[in-house]
Amino acid sequence: MNKLITSTQNPRIKQLILLKEKSRQRKKDGLFLIEGKRELSLAIKGGYKVETLLFFPDLFSESEASALSQYNIEIIEISKDVFQKLAHRDTTEGVIAVVKSKTHTLEDLKLTTKNPLILVTEAPEKPGNIGALLRTADAANVDAVIIANPKSDLYNPNSIRSSVGCVFTTEIAIASTEDAIAFLKTYNFNIFSAILQESQPYHTQDYTLPTAIVVGTEATGLTEDWRIAATQNISIPMQGVIDSMNVSVAAGILIFEAKRQRNFK
Amino acid sequence: MNKLITSTQNPRIKQLILLKEKSRQRKKDGLFLIEGKRELSLAIKGGYKVETLLFFPDLFSESEASALSQYNIEIIEISKDVFQKLAHRDTTEGVIAVVKSKTHTLEDLKLTTKNPLILVTEAPEKPGNIGALLRTADAANVDAVIIANPKSDLYNPNSIRSSVGCVFTTEIAIASTEDAIAFLKTYNFNIFSAILQESQPYHTQDYTLPTAIVVGTEATGLTEDWRIAATQNISIPMQGVIDSMNVSVAAGILIFEAKRQRNFK
Repeated sequence: MNKLITSTQNPRIKQLILLKEKSRQRKKDGLFLIEGKRELSLAIKGGYKVETLLFFPDLFSESEASALSQYNIEIIEISKDVFQKLAHRDTTEGVIAVVKSKTHTLEDLKLTTKNPLILVTEAPEKPGNIGALLRTADAANVDAVIIANPKSDLYNPNSIRSSVGCVFTTEIAIASTEDAIAFLKTYNFNIFSAILQESQPYHTQDYTLPTAIVVGTEATGLTEDWRIAATQNISIPMQGVIDSMNVSVAAGILIFEAKRQRNFK
Repeated sequence: MNKLITSTQNPRIKQLILLKEKSRQRKKDGLFLIEGKRELSLAIKGGYKVETLLFFPDLFSESEASALSQYNIEIIEISKDVFQKLAHRDTTEGVIAVVKSKTHTLEDLKLTTKNPLILVTEAPEKPGNIGALLRTADAANVDAVIIANPKSDLYNPNSIRSSVGCVFTTEIAIASTEDAIAFLKTYNFNIFSAILQESQPYHTQDYTLPTAIVVGTEATGLTEDWRIAATQNISIPMQGVIDSMNVSVAAGILIFEAKRQRNFK
Protein backbone atom coordinates (compact mmCIF):
# COMPACT_ATOMS: atom_id res chain seq x y z
CA MET A 1 0.00 0.00 0.00
CA ASN A 2 1.19 3.48 -0.80
CA LYS A 3 1.27 6.12 1.86
CA LEU A 4 -1.76 8.43 1.65
CA ILE A 5 -1.88 12.12 2.57
CA THR A 6 -5.19 13.96 2.43
CA SER A 7 -4.60 17.01 4.61
CA THR A 8 -2.98 20.21 3.39
CA GLN A 9 -1.97 20.73 7.02
CA ASN A 10 0.18 17.61 7.04
CA PRO A 11 3.70 18.67 8.14
CA ARG A 12 5.29 16.87 5.18
CA ILE A 13 3.06 18.79 2.76
CA LYS A 14 3.84 22.07 4.51
CA GLN A 15 7.51 21.30 4.02
CA LEU A 16 6.96 20.68 0.29
CA ILE A 17 5.09 23.97 -0.09
CA LEU A 18 8.13 25.73 1.36
CA LEU A 19 10.25 23.87 -1.19
CA LYS A 20 8.00 25.13 -3.97
CA GLU A 21 7.95 28.71 -2.81
CA LYS A 22 11.30 29.39 -1.19
CA SER A 23 14.63 29.39 -2.98
CA ARG A 24 16.32 29.33 0.43
CA GLN A 25 14.52 26.13 1.37
CA ARG A 26 15.49 24.50 -1.94
CA LYS A 27 19.14 25.35 -1.29
CA LYS A 28 19.02 24.19 2.31
CA ASP A 29 17.46 20.83 1.48
CA GLY A 30 19.18 20.32 -1.87
CA LEU A 31 15.77 19.41 -3.27
CA PHE A 32 13.18 20.93 -5.61
CA LEU A 33 9.79 20.08 -7.09
CA ILE A 34 8.98 18.94 -10.61
CA GLU A 35 5.45 18.92 -11.95
CA GLY A 36 4.10 17.02 -14.93
CA LYS A 37 4.91 13.75 -16.70
CA ARG A 38 7.06 15.20 -19.45
CA GLU A 39 9.28 17.19 -17.12
CA LEU A 40 9.62 14.22 -14.80
CA SER A 41 10.62 11.93 -17.64
CA LEU A 42 13.16 14.47 -18.93
CA ALA A 43 14.64 14.84 -15.45
CA ILE A 44 15.02 11.07 -15.05
CA LYS A 45 16.67 10.87 -18.48
CA GLY A 46 18.90 13.77 -17.47
CA GLY A 47 20.19 11.78 -14.52
CA TYR A 48 18.25 13.52 -11.78
CA LYS A 49 17.49 11.44 -8.68
CA VAL A 50 13.78 11.44 -7.82
CA GLU A 51 13.27 10.96 -4.08
CA THR A 52 9.49 11.08 -3.77
CA LEU A 53 6.59 10.98 -6.16
CA LEU A 54 3.21 12.35 -5.12
CA PHE A 55 0.25 11.47 -7.28
CA PHE A 56 -3.45 12.29 -7.34
CA PRO A 57 -5.08 9.05 -8.57
CA ASP A 58 -7.89 10.69 -10.57
CA LEU A 59 -5.25 12.13 -12.91
CA PHE A 60 -2.24 9.84 -12.59
CA SER A 61 -2.91 6.13 -12.27
CA GLU A 62 -1.47 3.96 -9.55
CA SER A 63 0.05 1.73 -12.21
CA GLU A 64 1.90 4.70 -13.70
CA ALA A 65 3.16 5.47 -10.19
CA SER A 66 4.15 1.86 -9.56
CA ALA A 67 6.09 1.74 -12.81
CA LEU A 68 8.46 4.25 -11.24
CA SER A 69 9.11 2.10 -8.17
CA GLN A 70 11.98 0.43 -10.04
CA TYR A 71 13.87 3.68 -9.48
CA ASN A 72 13.55 3.20 -5.71
CA ILE A 73 11.23 6.16 -5.35
CA GLU A 74 8.99 6.74 -2.35
CA ILE A 75 5.44 6.94 -3.66
CA ILE A 76 2.68 8.89 -1.91
CA GLU A 77 -0.94 9.14 -2.93
CA ILE A 78 -2.44 12.58 -2.32
CA SER A 79 -5.92 14.09 -2.32
CA LYS A 80 -7.17 16.70 -4.77
CA ASP A 81 -6.78 19.42 -2.12
CA VAL A 82 -3.17 18.52 -1.48
CA PHE A 83 -2.41 18.27 -5.19
CA GLN A 84 -3.88 21.70 -5.88
CA LYS A 85 -1.91 23.16 -3.00
CA LEU A 86 1.37 21.76 -4.33
CA ALA A 87 0.78 22.37 -8.04
CA HIS A 88 2.36 25.47 -9.57
CA ARG A 89 0.64 25.26 -12.92
CA ASP A 90 -2.89 24.69 -14.10
CA THR A 91 -1.85 21.19 -14.80
CA THR A 92 -4.05 18.18 -15.27
CA GLU A 93 -1.34 15.57 -14.98
CA GLY A 94 -1.67 14.84 -11.28
CA VAL A 95 1.98 14.21 -10.55
CA ILE A 96 4.58 16.07 -8.53
CA ALA A 97 8.06 14.84 -7.71
CA VAL A 98 10.64 15.79 -5.12
CA VAL A 99 13.98 15.72 -6.87
CA LYS A 100 17.58 16.11 -5.75
CA SER A 101 19.33 19.23 -7.03
CA LYS A 102 22.54 18.83 -8.98
CA THR A 103 25.61 20.75 -7.91
CA HIS A 104 26.34 22.27 -11.35
CA THR A 105 30.01 22.95 -10.71
CA LEU A 106 32.37 23.94 -13.52
CA GLU A 107 34.35 20.77 -12.75
CA ASP A 108 31.25 18.67 -13.49
CA LEU A 109 30.90 20.04 -17.05
CA LYS A 110 31.31 17.37 -19.67
CA LEU A 111 32.82 18.93 -22.79
CA THR A 112 33.23 16.21 -25.36
CA THR A 113 33.51 18.08 -28.67
CA LYS A 114 36.71 19.39 -30.20
CA ASN A 115 35.61 23.03 -30.48
CA PRO A 116 32.97 23.52 -27.82
CA LEU A 117 30.41 26.30 -27.98
CA ILE A 118 29.32 27.68 -24.59
CA LEU A 119 26.68 30.24 -23.77
CA VAL A 120 27.43 32.30 -20.67
CA THR A 121 24.69 34.37 -19.07
CA GLU A 122 25.72 36.74 -16.31
CA ALA A 123 23.35 37.67 -13.49
CA PRO A 124 20.10 36.65 -15.19
CA GLU A 125 17.24 38.04 -13.11
CA LYS A 126 13.97 36.80 -14.48
CA PRO A 127 13.23 33.07 -14.31
CA GLY A 128 11.50 33.51 -17.69
CA ASN A 129 14.73 34.75 -19.26
CA ILE A 130 16.70 31.80 -17.90
CA GLY A 131 14.06 29.48 -19.33
CA ALA A 132 14.17 31.10 -22.78
CA LEU A 133 17.99 31.00 -22.83
CA LEU A 134 17.96 27.31 -21.95
CA ARG A 135 15.47 26.60 -24.75
CA THR A 136 17.78 28.33 -27.21
CA ALA A 137 20.77 26.46 -25.77
CA ASP A 138 18.97 23.13 -26.18
CA ALA A 139 17.85 23.88 -29.75
CA ALA A 140 21.40 24.88 -30.70
CA ASN A 141 22.78 21.89 -28.80
CA VAL A 142 25.50 24.05 -27.27
CA ASP A 143 28.04 22.14 -25.23
CA ALA A 144 27.17 23.95 -22.02
CA VAL A 145 25.53 26.94 -20.43
CA ILE A 146 27.38 28.73 -17.65
CA ILE A 147 25.26 30.88 -15.37
CA ALA A 148 27.56 33.42 -13.75
CA ASN A 149 26.50 35.18 -10.55
CA PRO A 150 22.85 34.12 -10.88
CA LYS A 151 20.24 36.37 -9.32
CA SER A 152 17.54 33.76 -9.37
CA ASP A 153 17.31 30.07 -8.72
CA LEU A 154 17.64 27.55 -11.55
CA TYR A 155 15.04 25.37 -9.82
CA ASN A 156 12.50 28.15 -9.45
CA PRO A 157 9.20 26.68 -10.74
CA ASN A 158 9.01 29.50 -13.33
CA SER A 159 12.50 28.75 -14.68
CA ILE A 160 11.63 25.09 -15.07
CA ARG A 161 8.32 25.91 -16.68
CA SER A 162 9.60 28.52 -19.10
CA SER A 163 12.48 26.25 -20.09
CA VAL A 164 9.89 23.61 -21.14
CA GLY A 165 12.18 21.08 -19.47
CA CYS A 166 15.44 22.26 -21.10
CA VAL A 167 16.79 22.82 -17.60
CA PHE A 168 17.11 19.02 -17.46
CA THR A 169 18.63 18.44 -20.90
CA THR A 170 21.40 21.03 -20.99
CA GLU A 171 24.85 20.86 -19.39
CA ILE A 172 24.70 23.69 -16.89
CA ALA A 173 27.34 25.10 -14.56
CA ILE A 174 26.68 27.80 -11.99
CA ALA A 175 29.71 29.80 -10.89
CA SER A 176 31.04 33.20 -9.97
CA THR A 177 32.07 35.39 -12.88
CA GLU A 178 35.67 35.12 -11.69
CA ASP A 179 35.65 31.32 -11.69
CA ALA A 180 33.82 31.17 -15.03
CA ILE A 181 36.48 33.37 -16.65
CA ALA A 182 39.30 31.31 -15.12
CA PHE A 183 37.67 28.13 -16.42
CA LEU A 184 37.26 29.49 -19.96
CA LYS A 185 40.87 30.74 -20.04
CA THR A 186 42.21 27.44 -18.77
CA TYR A 187 40.53 25.65 -21.65
CA ASN A 188 41.59 28.27 -24.22
CA PHE A 189 38.14 29.52 -25.12
CA ASN A 190 37.74 32.60 -27.25
CA ILE A 191 35.53 34.83 -25.15
CA PHE A 192 33.06 37.03 -27.03
CA SER A 193 31.41 39.46 -24.63
CA ALA A 194 28.24 41.20 -25.78
CA ILE A 195 29.33 44.73 -24.85
CA LEU A 196 28.82 47.81 -26.98
CA GLN A 197 32.09 49.62 -26.14
CA GLU A 198 35.02 48.86 -28.44
CA SER A 199 32.95 46.14 -30.05
CA GLN A 200 33.00 44.59 -33.49
CA PRO A 201 29.77 43.64 -35.30
CA TYR A 202 29.02 40.07 -34.24
CA HIS A 203 28.85 38.71 -37.78
CA THR A 204 32.46 39.70 -38.57
CA GLN A 205 33.94 37.36 -35.96
CA ASP A 206 35.02 33.72 -36.22
CA TYR A 207 33.20 31.38 -33.86
CA THR A 208 34.57 28.08 -35.14
CA LEU A 209 37.25 27.63 -32.46
CA PRO A 210 36.35 26.92 -28.80
CA THR A 211 33.91 29.77 -28.23
CA ALA A 212 32.11 31.32 -25.29
CA ILE A 213 29.36 33.83 -26.08
CA VAL A 214 28.63 35.96 -23.03
CA VAL A 215 25.47 38.00 -22.48
CA GLY A 216 24.47 40.22 -19.57
CA THR A 217 21.20 41.67 -18.41
CA GLU A 218 18.95 44.01 -20.36
CA ALA A 219 19.20 46.62 -17.64
CA THR A 220 22.92 46.77 -16.91
CA GLY A 221 24.69 44.58 -19.47
CA LEU A 222 27.88 42.77 -18.50
CA THR A 223 30.31 43.60 -15.71
CA GLU A 224 33.75 45.07 -16.35
CA ASP A 225 35.32 41.65 -15.74
CA TRP A 226 33.93 40.33 -19.02
CA ARG A 227 35.21 43.37 -20.93
CA ILE A 228 38.70 42.75 -19.60
CA ALA A 229 38.52 39.00 -20.20
CA ALA A 230 37.09 39.28 -23.72
CA THR A 231 38.98 38.06 -26.74
CA GLN A 232 36.67 40.53 -28.52
CA ASN A 233 33.61 42.51 -27.53
CA ILE A 234 30.77 41.99 -29.98
CA SER A 235 27.53 43.81 -30.67
CA ILE A 236 24.48 43.39 -32.83
CA PRO A 237 24.14 46.39 -35.15
CA MET A 238 20.83 48.07 -34.39
CA GLN A 239 19.24 50.61 -36.64
CA GLY A 240 15.89 51.35 -35.13
CA VAL A 241 14.45 54.15 -33.04
CA ILE A 242 14.51 52.34 -29.72
CA ASP A 243 17.22 49.75 -30.24
CA SER A 244 16.48 47.57 -27.31
CA MET A 245 16.50 43.84 -27.66
CA ASN A 246 15.22 41.08 -25.45
CA VAL A 247 18.26 39.27 -23.97
CA SER A 248 17.08 35.85 -25.10
CA VAL A 249 16.53 37.12 -28.66
CA ALA A 250 20.02 38.65 -28.69
CA ALA A 251 21.54 35.41 -27.37
CA GLY A 252 19.66 33.44 -30.02
CA ILE A 253 21.04 35.63 -32.82
CA LEU A 254 24.62 35.30 -31.56
CA ILE A 255 24.48 31.55 -30.86
CA PHE A 256 22.91 30.75 -34.23
CA GLU A 257 25.47 32.87 -36.10
CA ALA A 258 28.08 30.63 -34.44
CA LYS A 259 26.09 27.56 -35.48
CA ARG A 260 25.80 28.87 -39.04
CA GLN A 261 29.56 29.31 -39.25
CA ARG A 262 29.96 25.76 -37.98
CA ASN A 263 27.52 24.50 -40.62
CA PHE A 264 25.29 23.25 -37.83
CA LYS A 265 27.74 20.48 -37.04
CA MET B 1 -7.54 76.18 -15.02
CA ASN B 2 -7.38 72.54 -15.91
CA LYS B 3 -10.31 70.31 -15.28
CA LEU B 4 -9.89 68.29 -12.06
CA ILE B 5 -11.20 64.78 -11.34
CA THR B 6 -10.74 63.29 -7.89
CA SER B 7 -13.32 60.50 -7.79
CA THR B 8 -12.73 57.02 -9.15
CA GLN B 9 -16.50 56.85 -9.55
CA ASN B 10 -16.51 59.71 -12.06
CA PRO B 11 -18.24 58.41 -15.25
CA ARG B 12 -15.40 59.66 -17.43
CA ILE B 13 -12.87 57.68 -15.35
CA LYS B 14 -15.08 54.60 -15.46
CA GLN B 15 -15.07 54.92 -19.23
CA LEU B 16 -11.26 55.09 -19.29
CA ILE B 17 -10.97 52.02 -17.10
CA LEU B 18 -13.05 50.15 -19.67
CA LEU B 19 -10.67 51.43 -22.33
CA LYS B 20 -7.73 50.08 -20.36
CA GLU B 21 -9.26 46.69 -19.70
CA LYS B 22 -11.44 45.86 -22.70
CA SER B 23 -10.20 45.28 -26.19
CA ARG B 24 -13.79 45.59 -27.41
CA GLN B 25 -14.09 49.06 -25.89
CA ARG B 26 -10.81 50.15 -27.52
CA LYS B 27 -12.08 48.98 -30.89
CA LYS B 28 -15.49 50.62 -30.42
CA ASP B 29 -14.06 53.99 -29.42
CA GLY B 30 -10.98 53.89 -31.64
CA LEU B 31 -8.99 54.96 -28.60
CA PHE B 32 -6.47 53.45 -26.20
CA LEU B 33 -4.39 54.45 -23.17
CA ILE B 34 -0.69 55.22 -23.01
CA GLU B 35 1.17 55.43 -19.74
CA GLY B 36 4.51 57.10 -19.06
CA LYS B 37 6.51 59.99 -20.53
CA ARG B 38 8.71 57.98 -22.83
CA GLU B 39 5.85 56.06 -24.44
CA LEU B 40 3.86 59.27 -24.81
CA SER B 41 6.73 61.06 -26.48
CA LEU B 42 7.33 58.11 -28.84
CA ALA B 43 3.64 58.04 -29.77
CA ILE B 44 3.61 61.77 -30.56
CA LYS B 45 6.76 61.34 -32.69
CA GLY B 46 5.09 58.38 -34.36
CA GLY B 47 2.22 60.58 -35.48
CA TYR B 48 -0.37 59.42 -32.97
CA LYS B 49 -3.06 61.95 -32.03
CA VAL B 50 -3.33 62.46 -28.27
CA GLU B 51 -6.86 63.48 -27.29
CA THR B 52 -6.62 63.79 -23.53
CA LEU B 53 -3.80 63.90 -21.03
CA LEU B 54 -4.45 63.04 -17.40
CA PHE B 55 -1.78 63.93 -14.88
CA PHE B 56 -1.24 63.51 -11.15
CA PRO B 57 0.55 66.72 -10.13
CA ASP B 58 2.79 65.18 -7.43
CA LEU B 59 4.51 63.16 -10.17
CA PHE B 60 4.01 65.14 -13.39
CA SER B 61 4.22 68.90 -13.16
CA GLU B 62 1.56 71.23 -14.45
CA SER B 63 4.17 72.93 -16.62
CA GLU B 64 5.02 69.60 -18.28
CA ALA B 65 1.32 69.17 -18.92
CA SER B 66 0.93 72.70 -20.26
CA ALA B 67 3.84 72.18 -22.65
CA LEU B 68 1.65 69.65 -24.42
CA SER B 69 -1.20 72.11 -24.92
CA GLN B 70 0.38 73.19 -28.22
CA TYR B 71 -0.85 69.87 -29.59
CA ASN B 72 -4.44 70.86 -28.79
CA ILE B 73 -4.77 68.26 -26.07
CA GLU B 74 -7.43 68.32 -23.39
CA ILE B 75 -5.64 68.32 -20.03
CA ILE B 76 -7.15 66.91 -16.85
CA GLU B 77 -5.61 66.92 -13.41
CA ILE B 78 -6.35 63.76 -11.43
CA SER B 79 -5.98 62.65 -7.81
CA LYS B 80 -3.68 59.89 -6.59
CA ASP B 81 -6.65 57.50 -6.27
CA VAL B 82 -7.74 58.10 -9.84
CA PHE B 83 -4.19 57.79 -11.13
CA GLN B 84 -3.66 54.46 -9.37
CA LYS B 85 -6.96 53.20 -10.71
CA LEU B 86 -5.98 54.05 -14.29
CA ALA B 87 -2.32 53.04 -14.17
CA HIS B 88 -1.41 49.63 -15.53
CA ARG B 89 2.16 49.60 -14.35
CA ASP B 90 3.91 50.38 -11.09
CA THR B 91 4.83 53.63 -12.66
CA THR B 92 6.00 56.76 -10.94
CA GLU B 93 5.57 59.07 -13.87
CA GLY B 94 2.06 60.31 -13.13
CA VAL B 95 0.87 60.64 -16.72
CA ILE B 96 -1.72 58.78 -18.75
CA ALA B 97 -2.94 59.74 -22.21
CA VAL B 98 -5.98 58.86 -24.27
CA VAL B 99 -4.76 58.35 -27.80
CA LYS B 100 -6.47 57.72 -31.13
CA SER B 101 -5.81 54.29 -32.65
CA LYS B 102 -4.34 54.08 -36.13
CA THR B 103 -6.07 51.98 -38.75
CA HIS B 104 -2.98 49.98 -39.77
CA THR B 105 -4.24 48.98 -43.20
CA LEU B 106 -1.96 47.39 -45.78
CA GLU B 107 -2.66 50.40 -48.02
CA ASP B 108 -1.22 52.70 -45.34
CA LEU B 109 2.16 50.93 -45.31
CA LYS B 110 4.98 53.18 -46.43
CA LEU B 111 7.63 51.06 -48.13
CA THR B 112 10.40 53.37 -49.25
CA THR B 113 13.41 51.08 -49.75
CA LYS B 114 14.29 49.24 -52.92
CA ASN B 115 14.32 45.74 -51.44
CA PRO B 116 12.07 45.90 -48.42
CA LEU B 117 12.30 43.42 -45.55
CA ILE B 118 8.99 42.62 -43.86
CA LEU B 119 8.28 40.48 -40.81
CA VAL B 120 4.90 38.77 -40.86
CA THR B 121 3.50 37.23 -37.69
CA GLU B 122 0.37 35.13 -38.00
CA ALA B 123 -2.14 34.84 -35.16
CA PRO B 124 0.14 35.97 -32.35
CA GLU B 125 -1.61 35.18 -29.10
CA LYS B 126 0.36 36.57 -26.21
CA PRO B 127 0.72 40.35 -25.94
CA GLY B 128 4.25 39.68 -24.62
CA ASN B 129 5.17 37.90 -27.87
CA ILE B 130 3.87 40.78 -30.00
CA GLY B 131 5.92 43.17 -27.89
CA ALA B 132 9.11 41.12 -28.25
CA LEU B 133 8.60 40.78 -32.04
CA LEU B 134 8.15 44.54 -32.35
CA ARG B 135 11.35 45.15 -30.38
CA THR B 136 13.23 42.89 -32.77
CA ALA B 137 11.57 44.59 -35.75
CA ASP B 138 12.61 48.02 -34.47
CA ALA B 139 16.20 46.95 -33.76
CA ALA B 140 16.49 45.45 -37.26
CA ASN B 141 14.74 48.48 -38.73
CA VAL B 142 12.59 46.26 -40.91
CA ASP B 143 10.42 48.12 -43.38
CA ALA B 144 7.20 46.85 -41.85
CA VAL B 145 5.55 44.29 -39.63
CA ILE B 146 2.34 42.67 -40.85
CA ILE B 147 0.18 41.09 -38.17
CA ALA B 148 -2.05 38.53 -39.90
CA ASN B 149 -5.23 37.33 -38.19
CA PRO B 150 -4.24 38.72 -34.78
CA LYS B 151 -5.63 36.98 -31.72
CA SER B 152 -4.85 39.85 -29.42
CA ASP B 153 -5.07 43.61 -29.56
CA LEU B 154 -2.04 45.69 -30.57
CA TYR B 155 -3.09 48.34 -28.06
CA ASN B 156 -3.38 45.90 -25.16
CA PRO B 157 -1.45 47.54 -22.27
CA ASN B 158 0.80 44.46 -22.09
CA SER B 159 1.67 44.65 -25.81
CA ILE B 160 2.60 48.30 -25.45
CA ARG B 161 4.60 47.65 -22.33
CA SER B 162 6.49 44.61 -23.61
CA SER B 163 7.27 46.42 -26.85
CA VAL B 164 8.99 49.16 -24.78
CA GLY B 165 7.30 51.65 -27.13
CA CYS B 166 8.26 49.91 -30.41
CA VAL B 167 4.55 49.66 -31.17
CA PHE B 168 4.79 53.39 -31.96
CA THR B 169 8.00 53.35 -34.00
CA THR B 170 7.37 50.48 -36.40
CA GLU B 171 5.30 50.49 -39.61
CA ILE B 172 2.56 48.03 -38.76
CA ALA B 173 -0.28 46.65 -40.84
CA ILE B 174 -3.01 44.40 -39.50
CA ALA B 175 -4.78 42.24 -42.06
CA SER B 176 -6.25 38.86 -42.81
CA THR B 177 -3.79 36.19 -43.94
CA GLU B 178 -5.51 36.24 -47.34
CA ASP B 179 -5.05 39.98 -47.81
CA ALA B 180 -1.50 39.89 -46.50
CA ILE B 181 -0.54 37.23 -49.04
CA ALA B 182 -2.25 39.14 -51.87
CA PHE B 183 -0.36 42.30 -50.85
CA LEU B 184 3.03 40.55 -50.76
CA LYS B 185 2.40 38.90 -54.14
CA THR B 186 1.31 42.18 -55.73
CA TYR B 187 4.61 43.75 -54.71
CA ASN B 188 6.68 40.72 -55.78
CA PHE B 189 7.95 39.74 -52.35
CA ASN B 190 9.76 36.48 -51.86
CA ILE B 191 7.79 34.79 -49.10
CA PHE B 192 9.77 32.65 -46.66
CA SER B 193 7.39 30.76 -44.40
CA ALA B 194 8.80 29.24 -41.23
CA ILE B 195 7.34 25.76 -41.71
CA LEU B 196 9.16 22.49 -41.11
CA GLN B 197 7.64 20.46 -43.99
CA GLU B 198 9.52 20.63 -47.29
CA SER B 199 11.73 23.31 -45.81
CA GLN B 200 15.28 24.39 -46.52
CA PRO B 201 17.65 25.43 -43.72
CA TYR B 202 17.12 29.17 -43.29
CA HIS B 203 20.78 30.07 -43.79
CA THR B 204 20.88 28.61 -47.31
CA GLN B 205 18.36 31.08 -48.72
CA ASP B 206 18.85 34.53 -50.29
CA TYR B 207 17.08 37.35 -48.46
CA THR B 208 18.49 40.28 -50.40
CA LEU B 209 15.50 40.79 -52.73
CA PRO B 210 12.13 42.04 -51.43
CA THR B 211 11.62 39.59 -48.57
CA ALA B 212 8.84 38.62 -46.22
CA ILE B 213 9.75 36.35 -43.31
CA VAL B 214 6.63 34.72 -41.90
CA VAL B 215 6.35 33.14 -38.45
CA GLY B 216 3.39 31.42 -36.78
CA THR B 217 2.59 30.50 -33.22
CA GLU B 218 4.57 28.18 -30.99
CA ALA B 219 1.57 25.93 -30.53
CA THR B 220 0.26 25.47 -34.07
CA GLY B 221 2.77 27.08 -36.45
CA LEU B 222 1.53 28.68 -39.67
CA THR B 223 -1.66 27.93 -41.54
CA GLU B 224 -1.73 26.02 -44.83
CA ASP B 225 -2.18 29.31 -46.72
CA TRP B 226 1.40 30.33 -45.99
CA ARG B 227 2.75 26.94 -47.12
CA ILE B 228 0.97 27.35 -50.45
CA ALA B 229 2.00 30.98 -50.84
CA ALA B 230 5.65 30.43 -49.87
CA THR B 231 8.47 31.03 -52.31
CA GLN B 232 10.28 28.63 -49.98
CA ASN B 233 9.57 27.13 -46.57
CA ILE B 234 12.46 27.64 -44.18
CA SER B 235 13.43 26.12 -40.86
CA ILE B 236 16.07 26.59 -38.21
CA PRO B 237 18.07 23.38 -37.81
CA MET B 238 17.65 22.19 -34.23
CA GLN B 239 19.83 19.56 -32.66
CA GLY B 240 18.77 19.39 -29.05
CA VAL B 241 16.63 17.06 -27.02
CA ILE B 242 13.55 19.26 -26.85
CA ASP B 243 13.94 21.44 -29.93
CA SER B 244 11.40 24.04 -29.04
CA MET B 245 12.17 27.67 -29.60
CA ASN B 246 10.48 30.83 -28.40
CA VAL B 247 8.78 32.45 -31.41
CA SER B 248 10.44 35.81 -30.86
CA VAL B 249 13.87 34.17 -30.63
CA ALA B 250 13.20 32.28 -33.88
CA ALA B 251 12.03 35.47 -35.61
CA GLY B 252 15.14 37.29 -34.36
CA ILE B 253 17.43 34.62 -35.80
CA LEU B 254 15.68 34.71 -39.20
CA ILE B 255 15.45 38.51 -39.45
CA PHE B 256 19.08 39.03 -38.47
CA GLU B 257 20.28 36.43 -40.98
CA ALA B 258 18.51 38.57 -43.60
CA LYS B 259 20.18 41.69 -42.17
CA ARG B 260 23.58 39.97 -42.22
CA GLN B 261 23.14 39.08 -45.88
CA ARG B 262 22.24 42.71 -46.55
CA ASN B 263 25.36 43.88 -44.68
CA PHE B 264 23.07 45.70 -42.24
CA LYS B 265 22.25 48.27 -44.92
